[in-house]
Amino acid sequence: MQAHHSTSEQHNVKQPSAARKPLPAFPSIAVVGATGAVGHEFLEVLSDLDVPMRELRLFASERSAGKTMHFKGASQVPAGDIVIEAASDDAFAGVDIALFSAGASVSKALRAACKRSGTLMIDNSSAFRMEPDVPLVVPEVNPQDAFSHTGVIANPNCSTIQMVVALAPLHKRAGIERIVVSTYQAASGAGAPAMDELYQQTRAYLNHEELHVQAFQHQIAFNCIPHIDVFLPDGSTKEEWKMVQETKKIMGDQSIRVAATCVRVPVLRCHGEAVSVQFKRPLSVEDARVALQAAPNVQLMDDPAHNTYPMPGLLAGTNKTYVGRLRADASVEHGLQMWVVADQIRKGAALNAVQIALLLMGKPITV
Amino acid sequence: MQAHHSTSEQHNVKQPSAARKPLPAFPSIAVVGATGAVGHEFLEVLSDLDVPMRELRLFASERSAGKTMHFKGASQVPAGDIVIEAASDDAFAGVDIALFSAGASVSKALRAACKRSGTLMIDNSSAFRMEPDVPLVVPEVNPQDAFSHTGVIANPNCSTIQMVVALAPLHKRAGIERIVVSTYQAASGAGAPAMDELYQQTRAYLNHEELHVQAFQHQIAFNCIPHIDVFLPDGSTKEEWKMVQETKKIMGDQSIRVAATCVRVPVLRCHGEAVSVQFKRPLSVEDARVALQAAPNVQLMDDPAHNTYPMPGLLAGTNKTYVGRLRADASVEHGLQMWVVADQIRKGAALNAVQIALLLMGKPITV
Repeated sequence: MQAHHSTSEQHNVKQPSAARKPLPAFPSIAVVGATGAVGHEFLEVLSDLDVPMRELRLFASERSAGKTMHFKGASQVPAGDIVIEAASDDAFAGVDIALFSAGASVSKALRAACKRSGTLMIDNSSAFRMEPDVPLVVPEVNPQDAFSHTGVIANPNCSTIQMVVALAPLHKRAGIERIVVSTYQAASGAGAPAMDELYQQTRAYLNHEELHVQAFQHQIAFNCIPHIDVFLPDGSTKEEWKMVQETKKIMGDQSIRVAATCVRVPVLRCHGEAVSVQFKRPLSVEDARVALQAAPNVQLMDDPAHNTYPMPGLLAGTNKTYVGRLRADASVEHGLQMWVVADQIRKGAALNAVQIALLLMGKPITV
Repeated sequence: MQAHHSTSEQHNVKQPSAARKPLPAFPSIAVVGATGAVGHEFLEVLSDLDVPMRELRLFASERSAGKTMHFKGASQVPAGDIVIEAASDDAFAGVDIALFSAGASVSKALRAACKRSGTLMIDNSSAFRMEPDVPLVVPEVNPQDAFSHTGVIANPNCSTIQMVVALAPLHKRAGIERIVVSTYQAASGAGAPAMDELYQQTRAYLNHEELHVQAFQHQIAFNCIPHIDVFLPDGSTKEEWKMVQETKKIMGDQSIRVAATCVRVPVLRCHGEAVSVQFKRPLSVEDARVALQAAPNVQLMDDPAHNTYPMPGLLAGTNKTYVGRLRADASVEHGLQMWVVADQIRKGAALNAVQIALLLMGKPITV
């Protein structure tokens, strides 16, 4: 890999619009939280999409500093082991884009440092998503918002991303009145230890051994847990609140009403969503199908006659948002129902953030 | 066990109202399809609820005839092995109540035989549910309907039963306008071989061995399958159609609108359901809570502060319908959301059918 020397393009400190300058054609890209599940996936996606970059730097906690992670390689950064650096206040000099997935507290702690270095922060945490001057971006839905950032762009919550990718093309045609969504969320949403816990618990269950519960509030093996993130005073969870609020912000339409129930299921890394949508104007199943077929990075998998529909257990490692079970909802005027699946670590996290970077670099976001 | 001699109360053949005569205090009860998952559960429930009966007879296919099944015992029928008989046209003489769970074709084939013997058929299959003169009964919801039968009472679909048990007390207070429900259905709904397949596939997955798919259309281990029962021309499944139509019939209100998405999840024997309900009149969360607390055989498990809510993996073998995550749905007028769990083989099948029998015997249905 390339040495991570300072770049020739020095950024001015305390110049508010510094981060809005055009990115270099071959930026220095950093992954913050490289050792986590999403961190690992950032390395995969940066390689798979052959993202133009002059260097790739990896940051994690002090504990991981000095260890290495293998990068499969991209056109400008050869395959090889990259030494992990400690994420610190003075670590971002020369970094053009920092892809953060180290939790909200780390993102908050390092925001000022990124600003000082003129580093664009693309943040996977929920720390800044609702701030008015932080764009919340899904490149297929609201790419224009990405360009009005002031140094930070937020990556939405995983369950929100795949829903708005599927619904935005329909919203354009018929205007969404109300969404009722129930999620079937994979263990990966709670990180690598949670995926491991699903494995370990399942194995213990089959062997009639004691189950150890740590990553989730309860046993996840052969179970469903209707509780993701913390509870709010109104009885909803923060995960459900995110789906309500983030959908409105991404779609740029505060009139969209959303009712969400978020449930963890014993699946490894793709989320499923049962989505019932009421539109303002008529939208036939056939017109919706045409719109989805033309939509970027959406793949219709909808052939009931051949038992074809997207399934979370069989789509791990893929990049698209898959839509199936598209049908009219006769219980409401202008209603449609569908089933949406995407890889939570890819489109729900790492891939979406990398696509935001590509967008700002003027590169195609097609996967 | 008792010998299954003909009873002293002979039934007249071809007398249409024969089956409507009062049942004896200690009826002869038969289980048809005794070797299946629900068949096994019938034996458990008849014992657990200590159902009054003078004899218990077991019927299955010719293949199983002559084998025995163990019965744990009830007050009038001592514990012991019961010899399985072949279900045939002349098998029902002297049987007062036949609990059927052997599939729609067996139910259809033996309906006339039951009628001739004056045997009340309580049928778990979908064969007769929509016939106008066949009551579709959930004892907590529409007990009065059970008494107007003409020889056959249908047991509703499992996913419908638990939903209406939870919603009926709320419907009484505020009138349901529309329900949007997403199910998280256990493998047990597809029978004992399906539960075994979930075990076997999961074990194979963990051991990196080849997965064998037979009971479901696709792999169920670590997966969700948005497809239960057959597809209908409108793109919905028969399972979803059942939830729409059966809810209206059981509630006795054709104006209730239902949108359902039914999904199989890798859980063994309890179904979960995310339910969003729009009522005609205002209903506060507190009033709904009071109504559910007073509702028969409903148990509120709803204490977010202590991470308490019903979970399908932890409620196997229980008899109640569990409701949690009760909260207002701000996305619609008079909206509430909740999460409902019940044991699919018990309340969703065997227990509900046995409760129908108890109802007709004038016995309490409380569990």
